[in-house]
Amino acid sequence: MTTITVPTRERSQMVEITDEVRRVVAESGITHGQVVVYVPHTTAAVTINEAYDPDVARDLLYKLTKEIPQSDGYHHAEGNSDAHLKASLFGSNQTILIDHGSLVLGRWQGIFFCEFDGPRQRNCFIAVTSFA
Amino acid sequence: MTTITVPTRERSQMVEITDEVRRVVAESGITHGQVVVYVPHTTAAVTINEAYDPDVARDLLYKLTKEIPQSDGYHHAEGNSDAHLKASLFGSNQTILIDHGSLVLGRWQGIFFCEFDGPRQRNCFIAVTSFA
Amino acid sequence: MTTITVPTRERSQMVEITDEVRRVVAESGITHGQVVVYVPHTTAAVTINEAYDPDVARDLLYKLTKEIPQSDGYHHAEGNSDAHLKASLFGSNQTILIDHGSLVLGRWQGIFFCEFDGPRQRNCFIAVTSFA
Repeated sequence: MTTITVPTRERSQMVEITDEVRRVVAESGITHGQVVVYVPHTTAAVTINEAYDPDVARDLLYKLTKEIPQSDGYHHAEGNSDAHLKASLFGSNQTILIDHGSLVLGRWQGIFFCEFDGPRQRNCFIAVTSFA
Repeated sequence: MTTITVPTRERSQMVEITDEVRRVVAESGITHGQVVVYVPHTTAAVTINEAYDPDVARDLLYKLTKEIPQSDGYHHAEGNSDAHLKASLFGSNQTILIDHGSLVLGRWQGIFFCEFDGPRQRNCFIAVTSFA
Repeated sequence: MTTITVPTRERSQMVEITDEVRRVVAESGITHGQVVVYVPHTTAAVTINEAYDPDVARDLLYKLTKEIPQSDGYHHAEGNSDAHLKASLFGSNQTILIDHGSLVLGRWQGIFFCEFDGPRQRNCFIAVTSFA
């Protein structure tokens, strides 16, 4: 299991981590298997979406923030319940396949660490396993 | 890793692929393990939900479209940011267990390829592994 | 594969099952691997979120119910399409890593069975595997 650190600079931000995941897969030497990307935070997530046009990430965060604003009758005293909800909607973990030594992503797909309550210094776990 | 093709006919459509996944599991001969179903697109997803009454899939798409319409102040020039968001909300991959040679689904569960920006010709990857 | 039962008492309720998952991991004796937590229902889900302040779970359910009310032009005759949608949004399965014999959760993370159409007697599957 490899830990990478992800510094974030905005309250809501999608940080592409595809290269980091690819590097861990390459270093593992595994040719057929899977990689689990896991976020150990409760106000952040990991998702797979378009990495080509940065407006896609911008639009995802714009619409999430519009529908799930920071204040909305919440009880949690830290004032970040919106971020907790976004974390569960996008999810804390993704499983991606490895085939012939390569991460199997679609042409437009990238892996994004999703910050919903930054800026913070964040961690992300990457674990590779070989298929029997 | 097996690739299946999923032709879609509507902009938003849920296509059940349970039988295809079951067939890949059966052909693998694996008795205890997991199957990962992975969608390599950024405006489509895979989810597990009720396969008995088609009104459930209709209602899911109805409500998603109502809350996340195609036009909503988005910047992405392709005009399909709504589909990108729905893809991240439902997710690009699901992990399902295999026990005694069978896919472990609840009585009402089916596996659905979710099209959010069709009609298109789509792919879906299915990878089976045995548990140690 | 271990099955645990989860009795729920409300229509919408998040029941923490972290201890049950930890126990299955400990009993497996596996030191490096993963655990898949799988919900075989179509109106329930599993998510990972803050387990420290119960107001977080309260706020998640509050906002989900506010945005996705039980009645909203749905066709499905059982009257629980809202629960089906929440199930797909949170997801039916989560993959969590095991490192040095321990479940790898962030400091504030817990695993929650999410009931969206209770009260009911529910099941949840837990499957542990060792990484090669």
